[in-house]
Amino acid sequence: MIHYLSNTSKCPDNYTVFKDENIFYLTGFYGKDSHSILFISDEKKFLLVNFIYLEEAKKSCAGLGIEVVLYKNNRFEKLKEIVLTLNYSSIGIEGDQIDHVSFLKLREQFKPSEKRIIGKRGIIERLRLIKDTEELKNIRNACKITDKVYEYILDFSQNKINNSSELEFALELERLMIKEGGDGRSFDFVIASGKGSSVPHYIASHKKIKNSVLLMDFGTVYKNYCSDITRTIFIDTRSSDYKLRKIYDIVLNAQQKAIEACREGVCCGELDSIAREYIVKQGYEKEFGHGLGHGVGLEVHESPIVNRNNKTILKENMVITIEPGIYIPGLGGIRIEDMVIVKKMVARIFTIQKKNLQLSHNL
Amino acid sequence: MIHYLSNTSKCPDNYTVFKDENIFYLTGFYGKDSHSILFISDEKKFLLVNFIYLEEAKKSCAGLGIEVVLYKNNRFEKLKEIVLTLNYSSIGIEGDQIDHVSFLKLREQFKPSEKRIIGKRGIIERLRLIKDTEELKNIRNACKITDKVYEYILDFSQNKINNSSELEFALELERLMIKEGGDGRSFDFVIASGKGSSVPHYIASHKKIKNSVLLMDFGTVYKNYCSDITRTIFIDTRSSDYKLRKIYDIVLNAQQKAIEACREGVCCGELDSIAREYIVKQGYEKEFGHGLGHGVGLEVHESPIVNRNNKTILKENMVITIEPGIYIPGLGGIRIEDMVIVKKMVARIFTIQKKNLQLSHNL
Repeated sequence: MIHYLSNTSKCPDNYTVFKDENIFYLTGFYGKDSHSILFISDEKKFLLVNFIYLEEAKKSCAGLGIEVVLYKNNRFEKLKEIVLTLNYSSIGIEGDQIDHVSFLKLREQFKPSEKRIIGKRGIIERLRLIKDTEELKNIRNACKITDKVYEYILDFSQNKINNSSELEFALELERLMIKEGGDGRSFDFVIASGKGSSVPHYIASHKKIKNSVLLMDFGTVYKNYCSDITRTIFIDTRSSDYKLRKIYDIVLNAQQKAIEACREGVCCGELDSIAREYIVKQGYEKEFGHGLGHGVGLEVHESPIVNRNNKTILKENMVITIEPGIYIPGLGGIRIEDMVIVKKMVARIFTIQKKNLQLSHNL
Repeated sequence: MIHYLSNTSKCPDNYTVFKDENIFYLTGFYGKDSHSILFISDEKKFLLVNFIYLEEAKKSCAGLGIEVVLYKNNRFEKLKEIVLTLNYSSIGIEGDQIDHVSFLKLREQFKPSEKRIIGKRGIIERLRLIKDTEELKNIRNACKITDKVYEYILDFSQNKINNSSELEFALELERLMIKEGGDGRSFDFVIASGKGSSVPHYIASHKKIKNSVLLMDFGTVYKNYCSDITRTIFIDTRSSDYKLRKIYDIVLNAQQKAIEACREGVCCGELDSIAREYIVKQGYEKEFGHGLGHGVGLEVHESPIVNRNNKTILKENMVITIEPGIYIPGLGGIRIEDMVIVKKMVARIFTIQKKNLQLSHNL
């Protein structure tokens, strides 16, 4: 599960990693918000941690040739102390994982040495694009748990749902995820009922759900890997949201077209266009105001971004979401999201295909 | 509730704000992870948002003299476009709220104009140190909800607790918070049972709690303001953790001493020392491996940090936590945390004072 930076990776001769997920990817040590630093080069590899994370880091790094070093107050000072013993004229760092003020401090530390600090970005993220067997297994499990929970939801009674507030419903989903073996939510769920569903960034509230359209964007974490799925259903079969029901079909068709087109060799921007052009033709250009999807793995949102502007070419074993949506302010919104794994000739859907318009007992 | 940057605030003649909490503080618009930018100067104030947040931002900024401006793809480009029409030779930005690579991009945008980009830090955070009446009301409510939920917990049966996993227990706490009017958890709760309690950054797991020491660090959000409390109890009265029970008294005394000393005029470092010196005298210097506390408000961790090195002088209406802890690897840990509001002559405790060693029915 540990991933090595090989010499063939397009990477400077040394690299300083700040991002917790990237450190985990390379060492197996996951100190969330621990302010750890990993330095890697052919000459030396070391992981700087504070007292609280020392034992855990040592356990994770045992046998990897990575020295675990304790820092007390100033991690940049400690970094410099060790790096100055090495023969590099410049030091590569994750420039998008350090704020500008901290960067200036770091540069100040190194100033007397005349070593240059060079900010790079995306090196480890590019390695993380393609998932290995164990990563795929974890992602598949996270999706299975999410699927199972969605099956439970479809079996809920109308009453049970209507008597919940959005916040209570979100928490019930998370409870079921944990029951099924998940490690809690992978992000703050979007549970948006009625008109709220037209707001793509909606935050679950104390509002009772009531017989209305219900958009659920949720997922769990399994062994540090995330799932992310969206379903939209109509709680009341007698509801007269004809317009939204028609939109549902449009979104579903758009998603289907994108899933069918998804395979190795397709460009992210192209995939977005396939869903978008269909939605535009149906007259909803402005109402699809976000990108088609994003990568999922250790982070619930990671590379590649699947939008119009991204020229990344999909490769086998990338994992992305495909999630078109149409949002009509004052009426409601529909989004349908699945996670797929890119294969040579197809995309395989990780999440179940049940995309019912309503609860099971109403079918 | 909107806070103005007055001319007396020590601030450059213009300032570009990236942090969502700071934008909320100054405008009432809270677009979490929305990549909005607020620009403020005497000459002009504007808020850059993307399409998704446009309506909400307009509503929040109505009547404030802040123009809401839509950006499409490149927010820095749009920022430059407007700022270049103003007569500032340099542009102040929140330098600790932009990553270094983005900073370079921003500087590149402005290069042809010869305007200098100057990274500052902590300007809005310093304003946020002292809470106004409405902020205090919200914080008090967040604490009241947390207190109420802790009372429920103390009434739980030993069985109910022992049959829960740490993750289930965490979720039950959150469910109760929401029931009592909170908007969910203010951070991922630390629910650590048995030996796990000796790990200050412990993450709740699927482990059943069982008759053991139980450390609970939890809190909620009310109208965007946070609460944060820690209690440690012994689930089984017959438990023979004599050493931990003795440590409980030491931690409680250390906390009491710090609370008694806390008032306007005291320095953060001094307050930390009061608790720390007592714990050191009892022989647990190394086992208290973190700072005494931190500010709480819109963020669950904000300025001031209450540790040895911080020379910030406490002022009336600052809100901080006081949370000493002692952690013995392989045995367990005790932490007791309350939130206090600093007053001229005293500190008033926001959170209830129930610091029982055990569940109510065992008393």
